Amino acid sequence: MADRFFGELPGVPVGTSWATRQEAAQAGVHRPMMSGISGTKAEGADSIVVSGGYEDDQDLGDEIFYTGAGGNDTGTGKQLADQSLDQSGNAGLVTSQLEGLPVRVIRGANGDPSYSPASGFRYDGLYRVAGHWSEVGKSDYRIWRYKLVRLSPQEAAPYIPAGNLPTGNDTPGTTAGVATRVIRSTKVSQTVKKLYDGYCQVCDVQLQSPGGLLAEGAHIRALGKPHLGPDVPANVLCLCPNHHSLFDAGGIYFTDDFKVHNYLGQVIGPLYKKHSIGLQHIRYHRELWAH
Amino acid sequence: MADRFFGELPGVPVGTSWATRQEAAQAGVHRPMMSGISGTKAEGADSIVVSGGYEDDQDLGDEIFYTGAGGNDTGTGKQLADQSLDQSGNAGLVTSQLEGLPVRVIRGANGDPSYSPASGFRYDGLYRVAGHWSEVGKSDYRIWRYKLVRLSPQEAAPYIPAGNLPTGNDTPGTTAGVATRVIRSTKVSQTVKKLYDGYCQVCDVQLQSPGGLLAEGAHIRALGKPHLGPDVPANVLCLCPNHHSLFDAGGIYFTDDFKVHNYLGQVIGPLYKKHSIGLQHIRYHRELWAH
Repeated sequence: MADRFFGELPGVPVGTSWATRQEAAQAGVHRPMMSGISGTKAEGADSIVVSGGYEDDQDLGDEIFYTGAGGNDTGTGKQLADQSLDQSGNAGLVTSQLEGLPVRVIRGANGDPSYSPASGFRYDGLYRVAGHWSEVGKSDYRIWRYKLVRLSPQEAAPYIPAGNLPTGNDTPGTTAGVATRVIRSTKVSQTVKKLYDGYCQVCDVQLQSPGGLLAEGAHIRALGKPHLGPDVPANVLCLCPNHHSLFDAGGIYFTDDFKVHNYLGQVIGPLYKKHSIGLQHIRYHRELWAH
Repeated sequence: MADRFFGELPGVPVGTSWATRQEAAQAGVHRPMMSGISGTKAEGADSIVVSGGYEDDQDLGDEIFYTGAGGNDTGTGKQLADQSLDQSGNAGLVTSQLEGLPVRVIRGANGDPSYSPASGFRYDGLYRVAGHWSEVGKSDYRIWRYKLVRLSPQEAAPYIPAGNLPTGNDTPGTTAGVATRVIRSTKVSQTVKKLYDGYCQVCDVQLQSPGGLLAEGAHIRALGKPHLGPDVPANVLCLCPNHHSLFDAGGIYFTDDFKVHNYLGQVIGPLYKKHSIGLQHIRYHRELWAH
């Protein structure tokens, strides 16, 4: 099998349509005939189909809250069982997030009428996986969710550094996308970072560079859709980039006694605290990782 | 003095022009009358003027390689002395990078004719500070440089989470921008990360999350302009987010004997090595931080 192809296919611009999944598969835009996610844990996911197959999907156009694969009734879209992150496509979307790989989005006629084609399937451009977490869906089973955000034209462009042009061995299939880890520095997070003088509340490290400290303000319940956390000190931690990354990916979580646990549940230390932290926020985060 | 205002000014859309610096200052778009950079280390920099004041400036439109303040002849733009990161505006631009604050760019008629107004001064939109480093400029003095990248409309939008709308105390001046730390995962960096099984080559940590390891492929000589580093294993390290951030901000560097130094020059340990690393690349990086 050829290498999985990430990014826009040559000759298949945004808006290209097909009458059936079979034709879309033949065009290479989404190769599996049945699965909504094309991908594996090792390679990442290169494309998804959004077509009303899961009752918990939510399509906002430039943002999609997508449900992982598995456990659903393919006729009604209803969940009949929990989903697992071990499922190949689900793990593939996480890899695409961690590696910053672009995901082709194909919408089908059964999706949200506001954004879906009237019939058949349509290639709607490249998205990045901005986040993943679990939750209990409409039918009371645990599902995995992915926030996909449409890439701007600048981000979607294949990354070919000048002076480093593709050679014969360097086919377009080998160019990967650009991942962006979004760090919002609000006045509130600047205040919290100042309170801790840049020391990480998990590991107590202070990262120094010639131009200043490298601490990050981490919102416990994320700002933005669908989490809609508040931008207040009780929802912000001062973390190093390592523990911010781990926190956002479910690698660590906090219990109500402000102990830090790794994702296997082991206590790795206390959360250093000089300001009041909202229990409702650390519970919200914990629930995303089923703890 | 009012709080420094970051982002687009109400009533001052992209393309607004003024005949003089004084009028631009009165409009609030760039308040200092002389300095090219408006900002301080504590607050960050909110605006810059690009108008041919420094011989080492390079304007590519959506990307600007901007020279820090100080040491120049204001008449000819020639450097007469080294620049310092302690200079208020220079430190302010670094803070804007670390905090992800948007910078207003005002172009003047003396800048690069391809992108500058025929006369007067023009507001050309919001940019983010994507990087900073030092180099020896055309006149053989050490200068500080900043890579500014124009924000996409999506990124430039003020960040106001739904359900968290501004109240009376929450003026537009308090909304900060969005910082994006760009992590390019190429096939080459994926290969290097696999070789080290995600262990950081500086601190030997392996960060585990339910969906996978959080290691990052760090290009020693950066891809993209102006550095144009190659995407080859000899130019890539497997680092944790902390040491990747430190490396990119000059907080650590490597000597030819593959010892890791902090920015004060102290040895903090060996660089773990399982693959061949190009000395020319670690020298290139070292030179950016004057070591």
